Amino acid sequence: MSKLVIVGTVAFDAIETPFGKTDKILGGAGTFIGLAASQFNVDSAVVSVVGGDFPQDYLDLLSDRNVDTSGIEIVQDGKTFFWSGKYHNDMNSRDTLVTELNVLEHFNPVVPESYKDAEVVMLGNLHPMTQLSVLKQMNKKPKLAILDTMNFWMDCALDDLYTVMKHIDVITINDEEARQLSGEYSLVAAARKIHTMGPQYVVIKKGEHGALLFHDEHMFYAPALPLEEVFDPTGAGDTFAGGFAGFLAKTEDYSFENMKKAVIYGSALASFCVEKFGTERMVNLKADDVRKRLHAFKQLTQFEIELT
Amino acid sequence: MSKLVIVGTVAFDAIETPFGKTDKILGGAGTFIGLAASQFNVDSAVVSVVGGDFPQDYLDLLSDRNVDTSGIEIVQDGKTFFWSGKYHNDMNSRDTLVTELNVLEHFNPVVPESYKDAEVVMLGNLHPMTQLSVLKQMNKKPKLAILDTMNFWMDCALDDLYTVMKHIDVITINDEEARQLSGEYSLVAAARKIHTMGPQYVVIKKGEHGALLFHDEHMFYAPALPLEEVFDPTGAGDTFAGGFAGFLAKTEDYSFENMKKAVIYGSALASFCVEKFGTERMVNLKADDVRKRLHAFKQLTQFEIELT
Repeated sequence: MSKLVIVGTVAFDAIETPFGKTDKILGGAGTFIGLAASQFNVDSAVVSVVGGDFPQDYLDLLSDRNVDTSGIEIVQDGKTFFWSGKYHNDMNSRDTLVTELNVLEHFNPVVPESYKDAEVVMLGNLHPMTQLSVLKQMNKKPKLAILDTMNFWMDCALDDLYTVMKHIDVITINDEEARQLSGEYSLVAAARKIHTMGPQYVVIKKGEHGALLFHDEHMFYAPALPLEEVFDPTGAGDTFAGGFAGFLAKTEDYSFENMKKAVIYGSALASFCVEKFGTERMVNLKADDVRKRLHAFKQLTQFEIELT
Repeated sequence: MSKLVIVGTVAFDAIETPFGKTDKILGGAGTFIGLAASQFNVDSAVVSVVGGDFPQDYLDLLSDRNVDTSGIEIVQDGKTFFWSGKYHNDMNSRDTLVTELNVLEHFNPVVPESYKDAEVVMLGNLHPMTQLSVLKQMNKKPKLAILDTMNFWMDCALDDLYTVMKHIDVITINDEEARQLSGEYSLVAAARKIHTMGPQYVVIKKGEHGALLFHDEHMFYAPALPLEEVFDPTGAGDTFAGGFAGFLAKTEDYSFENMKKAVIYGSALASFCVEKFGTERMVNLKADDVRKRLHAFKQLTQFEIELT
């Protein structure tokens, strides 16, 4: 089993959807990635920063699930990163209401000594230079470096993004971001162009329309599970990434064939995340729930056609 | 092998896409359905109407592929239905430029005597009462009646649509139409509601995002093949329906398990249709092309996860 180091925000979210609204609750990419990866019982650590206002209970929630929190710096006189957003009726788009960077503004990630030899590194969505700094702290090149990013960095730190992209194996972005980054409308053409920027594997997340994995001329597609009700999409993409990274760290097999399974695990975990507000569903998730959901994914996608 | 009777337009199309534009070329739902179904060498007949301006070559193109055209009425002093449309840059939306109903305005479908015992009936998109009239001409209730429709009939002939829906087994509509027909946003909830209107099987077509098959609590998903270039989406939905109906007529197995395969065949054939203008790709399609494409669909979707 490989060690997994995760960098990403640990934050407060306040969310409004057609189904209701929350006060400040636990959120952040690092949190969702860590919770998803914890399903695989790998040795993982989250590298992040919070303020003195961050409840110990929230940190315990991660460490109780075998996620090392020693890399989460606590700035006692600072405030935790806060994001608030409101989803539209179709749940596919949202408005950001508040973004308070707070302690994140001067975040300088420090990888715990015992995780500098981790084989898998999951770089959650942050400034590309922050992501690069984590990679540079590793004692040796990881076997697998996965990067998540977003259009914001393409708009305001594109050269830095290009730089970190040269050092990673897998990039996960959504379809619109893939188009923006590549200048190509077709996702097949976009993935091919993104390959030339560094990552050998390109995962394009299409939300309710599933996810595509590209590697050279190979493609694999995992649908999102059609749900009766999507309650809160916050964290679904990070949960996908955490499931993907956690499965690969657990199995130590970084082949395309195994990545197909990782995409299915990521999709299955993400399908739980959206069922409740914030992390609520993920912290109550049992191994048997996951097993049943994976069975549902098989039912949804597998068919028998004999070809000669 | 079952006989298949198809009702649908046989028409002229003029199409403009970012890749070019055509003069009047062969089009129409009945044409695309017939061409797709012809891949399965079933006994099929298209019931339609054309004007005296319709070239014999176009009719021969169907009959050469074992599609019976004796149910295509030729109104010598009338003009063939003509549709012209222009696709936007993303190819997902289009504007209709011209719709000339011509002989379609007084279309009274007549099922050839030798097809009144067909086991499979494919009702292409037409006025619901026209679709119903075909069903009523059958000597006995078909083993499988499939209906394709669109938002236009929901807007202007909803009660008639409800009437014909009570007599069919499968409905194929797109995601927006499923939402309009059911008043439900979630496609899972939409399909459940549409079941109560008649059809036991609901196929929701999501264009580049694939297709979903619903039956009671069972779901199956087939992606669209991600393509380097979509040249002309015209006829893709009808080609899907023709592949679906043709496969089921060929195999005479109307179970959910076999319908899953039919959805894959439909998706595979539709992925060819969009590669060229109009029917160009479909008339040049070889069995070996289809075999290879089905292999690509397996590669795209099949995975091995052992669950206990």
